[in-house]
Amino acid sequence: MGWDRNILTDSGGYQVYSLSSNRKINEEGVKFKSHIDGSLHMFTPEYAMQLQRSIGADIIMAFDECTPYPCEYQYAKESMDLTHRWLERCKVYLDNNPSVYEHSQAFFPIVQGSTYKDLRKASAEYIANAGAEGNAIGGLSVGEPADEMYEMTDVVCRILPEDKPRYLMGVGTPVNILENIALGIDMFDCVMPTRNARNGMLFTSQGTINIKNKKWEADFSPIDEMGITFVDKEYTKAYLRHLFAANEYLGKQIATIHNLGFYMWLVREARARIIQGDLAEWKNRMVNQMDTRL
Amino acid sequence: MGWDRNILTDSGGYQVYSLSSNRKINEEGVKFKSHIDGSLHMFTPEYAMQLQRSIGADIIMAFDECTPYPCEYQYAKESMDLTHRWLERCKVYLDNNPSVYEHSQAFFPIVQGSTYKDLRKASAEYIANAGAEGNAIGGLSVGEPADEMYEMTDVVCRILPEDKPRYLMGVGTPVNILENIALGIDMFDCVMPTRNARNGMLFTSQGTINIKNKKWEADFSPIDEMGITFVDKEYTKAYLRHLFAANEYLGKQIATIHNLGFYMWLVREARARIIQGDLAEWKNRMVNQMDTRL
Repeated sequence: MGWDRNILTDSGGYQVYSLSSNRKINEEGVKFKSHIDGSLHMFTPEYAMQLQRSIGADIIMAFDECTPYPCEYQYAKESMDLTHRWLERCKVYLDNNPSVYEHSQAFFPIVQGSTYKDLRKASAEYIANAGAEGNAIGGLSVGEPADEMYEMTDVVCRILPEDKPRYLMGVGTPVNILENIALGIDMFDCVMPTRNARNGMLFTSQGTINIKNKKWEADFSPIDEMGITFVDKEYTKAYLRHLFAANEYLGKQIATIHNLGFYMWLVREARARIIQGDLAEWKNRMVNQMDTRL
Repeated sequence: MGWDRNILTDSGGYQVYSLSSNRKINEEGVKFKSHIDGSLHMFTPEYAMQLQRSIGADIIMAFDECTPYPCEYQYAKESMDLTHRWLERCKVYLDNNPSVYEHSQAFFPIVQGSTYKDLRKASAEYIANAGAEGNAIGGLSVGEPADEMYEMTDVVCRILPEDKPRYLMGVGTPVNILENIALGIDMFDCVMPTRNARNGMLFTSQGTINIKNKKWEADFSPIDEMGITFVDKEYTKAYLRHLFAANEYLGKQIATIHNLGFYMWLVREARARIIQGDLAEWKNRMVNQMDTRL
């Protein structure tokens, strides 16, 4: 794919969750049926490690089960224990099999435990003890209210080591990102800036814009006065709306470039605020400002 | 749209042809019903001039009727005469109405006459006499065999002034372009490099590639060894095929960048060969080479 920067691969654990109508989980792993061609695939911790090694990603993820929301306590606990047993199998595979490439591939285990504080705490302790180069939090951003997500992140971040990256998987909106950074998260991944862009949603420091809305039809102001990326001042809202109305791919491209630029600005700025020591104040102001539909 | 280079606008004459199920032509102009919202629009030579002036294009086109192929002689003759009368009305409008912008807007009249040599000759003489800054040939590339197109281009190019650009509208394949350059054409416009790219067709100096074809599935050679644009050597055929199979927009982008780069290379090279004096030899070799499905 010609990407010469860092690559992170997921293990398939989330896909087990999101394609759940087509899967069967047991101790050995997950069997699932492709929604594309109906073919059957068996994923195990060992196979997920082998695949990620062969892709050559810089960061590879443990094979876990991501529980749905809501999730009964008993299921969440059993699933968490299974994820922990799978983690041991991932480590054994990685220890006993040679690397495929010369560069190192960092391995991140994943905290689970649904929305139960005691489970999250137990899982975070288990994961912290694994001594990995970085640690991830999974099973959030699956439909739970934001406050529950923050509560879990808070519990877990108090346990995961501060000197290693803490990665919150699948999050989120600009507001979610700032709130979680304030709680100690260092890394995120999310389809939101790109997928929402393709559907005409723009994120800005002043709130979100649905560019398909009729109200932008004759608004010849720049897409975003901030001008973070070249598209922001090059094109008008009216023109971008026209591109979406005419179903021109260029609209999706422009919106995607804008949103990625905005997300990058947001986390660069958060970093600068952490260093300056005024993250909380800035975060509160930004969260307030961005929580608006323009 | 933020395009800071030259712009050429068409007058609507071709749209009259391509949306023919929804139009009525009379001496005054063309009434047509939008296929998008059913609204009725009346286009006249005067209105087409007014619109193109207001857009501010660097080259604006006369309002003409583009006949279909095949076309009966009598209809072709009457239509050609109508196009000539409309040309006079365009000129009167431009002479009697002030410019909208400070920059000049070159006006190109259009030769018609279907596939009849005597009509093409008469039309080319009429158009040449208009003394415009450039001259266009319309009504070709509408389904006629390539040899008939070349025959008409040849007749017309012998009449249109050599020291003004001769513009063949709506053409064409790389082979069509080289053959027409050899007959004296200086300018082209066509959706082919971009539209065909979006459908997975790549033009190369060795022939055309349908990248969706199964035969490229495991071909890890560069898209095009020539390396005219950065995508050509950055991505493999197998990867580009995968993008089309997965319906990823990036596939369309890569193919579009490649095809536009190849078309630009083709005409730059043709220009160099004209200056060197060996166009015919090079053209014959290239036409032979490019007329292949890889």
